[in-house]
Amino acid sequence: MTSRKSFGSDNHAPAHESVLRMLTDASVGDAHAYGDDPLTERASAELRDLSGAQEVLFVFTGTAANVLGISLLVRPFEGVICAESAHLNIDECGAAERVLGTKLLPVPVPDGKLTPRAIASRLGGRHDEHRVQPAAVAITQATELGTCYSIEELAELARFCRQEGLRVYMDGARLANAAASLGCELRDLSSQVDILSVGGTKNGAVGAEAVLVMDAQLTASAPYLRKQQMQLASKMRYLAAQFIALLSDDLWLRNAGHANEMAARLGEEIAGLPGVELWQPVQSNAVFATLDPVLIEELQQDWSFHVWDEAAHVVRWMTAYDTTEADVDQFVLAIRQAVTGAGAGRG
Amino acid sequence: MTSRKSFGSDNHAPAHESVLRMLTDASVGDAHAYGDDPLTERASAELRDLSGAQEVLFVFTGTAANVLGISLLVRPFEGVICAESAHLNIDECGAAERVLGTKLLPVPVPDGKLTPRAIASRLGGRHDEHRVQPAAVAITQATELGTCYSIEELAELARFCRQEGLRVYMDGARLANAAASLGCELRDLSSQVDILSVGGTKNGAVGAEAVLVMDAQLTASAPYLRKQQMQLASKMRYLAAQFIALLSDDLWLRNAGHANEMAARLGEEIAGLPGVELWQPVQSNAVFATLDPVLIEELQQDWSFHVWDEAAHVVRWMTAYDTTEADVDQFVLAIRQAVTGAGAGRG
Amino acid sequence: MTSRKSFGSDNHAPAHESVLRMLTDASVGDAHAYGDDPLTERASAELRDLSGAQEVLFVFTGTAANVLGISLLVRPFEGVICAESAHLNIDECGAAERVLGTKLLPVPVPDGKLTPRAIASRLGGRHDEHRVQPAAVAITQATELGTCYSIEELAELARFCRQEGLRVYMDGARLANAAASLGCELRDLSSQVDILSVGGTKNGAVGAEAVLVMDAQLTASAPYLRKQQMQLASKMRYLAAQFIALLSDDLWLRNAGHANEMAARLGEEIAGLPGVELWQPVQSNAVFATLDPVLIEELQQDWSFHVWDEAAHVVRWMTAYDTTEADVDQFVLAIRQAVTGAGAGRG
Amino acid sequence: MTSRKSFGSDNHAPAHESVLRMLTDASVGDAHAYGDDPLTERASAELRDLSGAQEVLFVFTGTAANVLGISLLVRPFEGVICAESAHLNIDECGAAERVLGTKLLPVPVPDGKLTPRAIASRLGGRHDEHRVQPAAVAITQATELGTCYSIEELAELARFCRQEGLRVYMDGARLANAAASLGCELRDLSSQVDILSVGGTKNGAVGAEAVLVMDAQLTASAPYLRKQQMQLASKMRYLAAQFIALLSDDLWLRNAGHANEMAARLGEEIAGLPGVELWQPVQSNAVFATLDPVLIEELQQDWSFHVWDEAAHVVRWMTAYDTTEADVDQFVLAIRQAVTGAGAGRG
Repeated sequence: MTSRKSFGSDNHAPAHESVLRMLTDASVGDAHAYGDDPLTERASAELRDLSGAQEVLFVFTGTAANVLGISLLVRPFEGVICAESAHLNIDECGAAERVLGTKLLPVPVPDGKLTPRAIASRLGGRHDEHRVQPAAVAITQATELGTCYSIEELAELARFCRQEGLRVYMDGARLANAAASLGCELRDLSSQVDILSVGGTKNGAVGAEAVLVMDAQLTASAPYLRKQQMQLASKMRYLAAQFIALLSDDLWLRNAGHANEMAARLGEEIAGLPGVELWQPVQSNAVFATLDPVLIEELQQDWSFHVWDEAAHVVRWMTAYDTTEADVDQFVLAIRQAVTGAGAGRG
Repeated sequence: MTSRKSFGSDNHAPAHESVLRMLTDASVGDAHAYGDDPLTERASAELRDLSGAQEVLFVFTGTAANVLGISLLVRPFEGVICAESAHLNIDECGAAERVLGTKLLPVPVPDGKLTPRAIASRLGGRHDEHRVQPAAVAITQATELGTCYSIEELAELARFCRQEGLRVYMDGARLANAAASLGCELRDLSSQVDILSVGGTKNGAVGAEAVLVMDAQLTASAPYLRKQQMQLASKMRYLAAQFIALLSDDLWLRNAGHANEMAARLGEEIAGLPGVELWQPVQSNAVFATLDPVLIEELQQDWSFHVWDEAAHVVRWMTAYDTTEADVDQFVLAIRQAVTGAGAGRG
Repeated sequence: MTSRKSFGSDNHAPAHESVLRMLTDASVGDAHAYGDDPLTERASAELRDLSGAQEVLFVFTGTAANVLGISLLVRPFEGVICAESAHLNIDECGAAERVLGTKLLPVPVPDGKLTPRAIASRLGGRHDEHRVQPAAVAITQATELGTCYSIEELAELARFCRQEGLRVYMDGARLANAAASLGCELRDLSSQVDILSVGGTKNGAVGAEAVLVMDAQLTASAPYLRKQQMQLASKMRYLAAQFIALLSDDLWLRNAGHANEMAARLGEEIAGLPGVELWQPVQSNAVFATLDPVLIEELQQDWSFHVWDEAAHVVRWMTAYDTTEADVDQFVLAIRQAVTGAGAGRG
Repeated sequence: MTSRKSFGSDNHAPAHESVLRMLTDASVGDAHAYGDDPLTERASAELRDLSGAQEVLFVFTGTAANVLGISLLVRPFEGVICAESAHLNIDECGAAERVLGTKLLPVPVPDGKLTPRAIASRLGGRHDEHRVQPAAVAITQATELGTCYSIEELAELARFCRQEGLRVYMDGARLANAAASLGCELRDLSSQVDILSVGGTKNGAVGAEAVLVMDAQLTASAPYLRKQQMQLASKMRYLAAQFIALLSDDLWLRNAGHANEMAARLGEEIAGLPGVELWQPVQSNAVFATLDPVLIEELQQDWSFHVWDEAAHVVRWMTAYDTTEADVDQFVLAIRQAVTGAGAGRG
């Protein structure tokens, strides 16, 4: 990895110093295992207060949060409607299918956001025993494409799903970025769904995610399913401590807000460049742009970032809580040079 | 939790300060995610060197290590012979059955240790399509009952399994305690099996286990299965860092050796007490003893430990890397007082 | 296969002529697929009337009936208590584990019959998230060992399970033999459980089993699960027709009663022979006996039957609806000759 | 169901009289269970001879054949590329996902036929541990849309898949219709794939399908997986007998050829009618047409058939081995009357 700031992923960043400090502070004396300790109780209580959740379950990864959350909502013959681009559908190596036996019912949507109309397109075959029965909808906030559902969009979607008897799960691996972007509280988002995850890892944690169960009727199975899904930490205090650090003084929102600002800065700077086009609006900490593949290759010699869609020449540039204005400006300069040919002598 | 040292579990202890320090040291700058970083390469290389493994996979929990390890050895119609008391069989909420669809074939064994004879008792029905086909044997070192397989016992078991076409998986959640107890190298243990886990969590880590694949033919699927089983850490460097700390200056062996010594001290002190009997030989960091249930109840008012078998009045007392001689002596005093009636005025 | 009557299994017999005739009678004109046809409605209604069931689902095999029935009773972290000798546990190649992800909790019982005490031995660890939660009990009537639960035993078991919050599934692959043996109605058996299967195949059908769901709250998922478990017949009329034939004029009870009588005759005749001992009481259409292994080998040269337990020299002799008195007498003669050495010149 | 011939499905037809006769012929004396009988050996041998298969496994349903076939080709982290319209994807209530834990990778194709180009669109993410790894391609012959792959198309597809390291499974629920349509031998089709099913049920059987494994390296697990997937018939002779009947004097091809002719006749007759358009070419025993929804509703009052796509006004009319020219002509007359308004006085 070069010494230049990575725009490859928000999980390239190290853990935030407050998180690390809290791990050390948590390391005093014995604590009961498996969550029966004061730190876990404290972190859970704080998340319950902020969200209105009935139950909080800490897990290790975003994939695990998605699988656990969904496992509380569907039986084996029931399916989950999701965006075709959803992490759940593309990037989890079939964990939901393997672990839950659940069929995903993906819908192509251009901006990563499901709509009532998109969901309705997957509701055929209800009460037909040959068909997987749609029972839940999985949305992502912020989406894999860096877009955010507005509160109104979420409310409309929730209304539609309630009418149709569909439960809603929200993948919040980047929920902080969405909350910061919308300027809203956690409760504004959590109140629209049945279960959601709140990601810590991409927002400055070492590795910790929380699953929030909003409906008291869904909580009874949760501890068993978490254990069975290999997500029960014995030294749970260390997952809890990470959330305590992130929730202190709104660090989670400040980290996310800063990353969002850096993405906005990057987006604004490159928007006007010849041959560079924003592929999605910049609503969180991601900038998706299209670019000449020759330039992409040239930039990747010095900078770390992903090509999102090779055929369509789409790149993804992520910012993190520790991306600086100088990092952005240096990267913008490199892009500008590549675009204007100043860097053409290279490679 | 009282301020007295817990004898409830070795995972009640906090992380070792060297482990915490290494987490902080690891927090410098960006690192590629999912294991493509220098710390993961270093920790893997150290474990490969010590064990002769072809592949090292870090995961979050002991249950996950067991499931991942076994998933590399069996196809869905194949079963796993294990001790009835195995963690895999009793304490993992059916993870292997759920995630792998595998049937376990448990054998009751008095000391938690499988023998060729015990394994042979489960080999009926081979080539009968109505029967799950035994394909692997899962052993635990040190066992759930605190006993250890000797190197000779492991070698004999390995020989038998090879003859019978059975693969061997070793659950090493407390492998360090076994190695310290036997005074052997990691390689002495790893060379007897096809796949093993090496536990960090119970030995001073925050939460990290390693799966070591000894046979190069078994490695190809491993990365996919780890991801699908929700065990791929994005910030992998933090799992690796824990192992780097534990392997430095043999901290893993020193921690385990100390815990073992404390268990030995405890075992020796209480062995002679009237009404107290060792239920298993003390060969690692656990003391299993039988005790009058009235005394058990009385002791549990002040001390944290588990009743292993209520009907048989068996208790389990675990020591940890941070258990002190004073802790043991204070606990022994309490047991002695209970046994001799000095504490009878209580409760 | 020799021309001598097989004592190997009741499924060695061909289909009963009434069953075959009904298949032909059913072959007139079109019928809607998947059970929406008059014959399926008629067979279901007859079974509902006889049993009090809320829902009747026809499936192809006994293994499928067990898996479907149990899938209606347990969630993935819940386990099923069964006899160690249960078909479900031994002879279904791990179908329950694979298809349902369910852990079976087997109990060794000498006569194949669970008791409240045996069930209670598996109820440890309730409310402990590390343990599979016992949620259902699977019994077999008649058992794999040819024994039958009395109505009183069933009632006591049902009472115990209700108290303990356990559902009861009854594997009725040989339910007809049990009903004939007890001289009871289908309803006397079905009323004691939540779900049961009624076997046709071993009782004169070509291949058909019925799953009877007694509790209306359990029926909603059943059609989907049957389809997902690959048990939805498109030409369902042909499964239904087999049951119509078996239920006509109590053919199911007459077939089973005759098979039972033949087993009783066989049991009585051989009980007194030197070196032959009944291993289980003869309560259905199976005779289990112990015999010198040399004699077993000699008898198997001319006769088809299974060695049930090689180590204990136990053989199983099954009778079928079409076993005749002459068949039994001829077999008894052979056994007698073997035992008395008259046949010792052979092999 | 009205007395008019159903155009709803080829499984509305009864079993062919030759099949029924063979069931009766098979009902003589005892036969070993689970396929160890002469009829099963005979049917298997005939299918092996016709196809070049290494192993033949009889199962109960088309869904089961698909799941068993695919289970021999993929490991749990591997996916199956299929047409979005595939029965496997739409009409099996998620059996593949539930039973195998496999993710399907569906591609929308207008005529139900995969092409190398369509398959290639799903090959992204190879060697990326986050992605399900494409390992097999499932095609249907004849397709759910009544179209057939030509031999050349199959060969091209096979070549492409071999190059890409993909195995090929062919769902042959209507393979007979494809063979009759192409005028080819079973071997011409089987030789292009690794595993295929041959459907009996829709072609005059009571209920029987065969899975043909072409590659000897894939056969070892098959018997266990069939049992575990609840598809091992105890009285296997009755599945085998159905295939013996269908293979005698090429009844399978004659039945399918007749059904195809009836579909062709129907297609030709209605092709010219105003407001009626063929939606797919008629290449087997299905006619897909678009029609005014008012007319659809009117026709459905007297005739049994399915609306395939409500939004697009597509209907599906299936013919069967027992559809007569008179049936077709009567139906054509009804369509003609509906279209020309002669029937407008109704409903």
